[in-house]
Amino acid sequence: MTHDSVNLSERREKSLNRLKRIEGQVRGVVRMIEGERYCIDVLTQLSAIKSALSAVEGEILKDHSERCVASAIHSGDPAEQQAKMNELIALLNKHYKL
Amino acid sequence: MTHDSVNLSERREKSLNRLKRIEGQVRGVVRMIEGERYCIDVLTQLSAIKSALSAVEGEILKDHSERCVASAIHSGDPAEQQAKMNELIALLNKHYKL
Amino acid sequence: MTHDSVNLSERREKSLNRLKRIEGQVRGVVRMIEGERYCIDVLTQLSAIKSALSAVEGEILKDHSERCVASAIHSGDPAEQQAKMNELIALLNKHYKL
Amino acid sequence: MTHDSVNLSERREKSLNRLKRIEGQVRGVVRMIEGERYCIDVLTQLSAIKSALSAVEGEILKDHSERCVASAIHSGDPAEQQAKMNELIALLNKHYKL
Repeated sequence: MTHDSVNLSERREKSLNRLKRIEGQVRGVVRMIEGERYCIDVLTQLSAIKSALSAVEGEILKDHSERCVASAIHSGDPAEQQAKMNELIALLNKHYKL
Repeated sequence: MTHDSVNLSERREKSLNRLKRIEGQVRGVVRMIEGERYCIDVLTQLSAIKSALSAVEGEILKDHSERCVASAIHSGDPAEQQAKMNELIALLNKHYKL
Repeated sequence: MTHDSVNLSERREKSLNRLKRIEGQVRGVVRMIEGERYCIDVLTQLSAIKSALSAVEGEILKDHSERCVASAIHSGDPAEQQAKMNELIALLNKHYKL
Repeated sequence: MTHDSVNLSERREKSLNRLKRIEGQVRGVVRMIEGERYCIDVLTQLSAIKSALSAVEGEILKDHSERCVASAIHSGDPAEQQAKMNELIALLNKHYKL
């Protein structure tokens, strides 16, 4: 097993653990609302969950760049390279449309 | 039961349903990663979950404004009013710090 | 002149200086595009300008909270208090709609 | 002059016009603050300026994708392609760090 694939599977493990924690946080907010917890506390918690999701997005993007993007470059296939670029640009564009 | 409290409990029900759907979506992303689904699809899904959470935040804020904020105003208690205002300003401030 | 109004006019001075710097940065981006500077550098600069604007928003919000919101609370007028709260909630709501 | 370069210079013209309008809007906010205009109006205007800047970012990104990214792909040079990809990923990453 190469050094890279170790890093990759470690990173995937980390993302999975984060997502499971996020799932628990979402369930926690359900309980907060059912228990009529103060709205501001609920909003604070929801905002923390969104930040946690953004951290996962950052990890997935790193994965994407090391695997899919790198393989498109090594493929030497212009169509595949263009497709990868377009996907990244489309993702970026969504943020500018906000 | 007044008209307002019906609206309130309807809205809370709606938020709870949305959160349960979000919980399912988070579990779905776990399965996507375990199934080695394409990173861009995972990123798209994570972004959809964040939007869904923002919609819940909007609902909770409406709740907050109709219940807690209104009750602070009717209380006539300047300290409580100031506290409510400060909380809203602190929430807003976080968005400007982004 | 009270301590508070000194702070207030200092803060306003700071916002005005920041905005004048931002105006210069926007002019700088015009020159970058006219000079065919590299797109990524232009994007980085545009992103820096948005951050600078957010910092001004934070300052203005502080001003608002110390002046307008405080005066609404001291007025004891529920209609004015409700109006101030509604404005803050409407601003917040925009961020959740993003 | 090819069809593409017409599009390009039209788009650049559009970005320049938008930026000049933005420069005027920033000056307008300076006057609003000097004229002690209501904070909420100032905040609304600042938020409109940030949206206008995001629209320019979208245009610049389109430019980038049609010119620089396309030329990196056609170059067939893996180092240049990797560099372009890394820049896009770095930009995206900033949004996830927010």
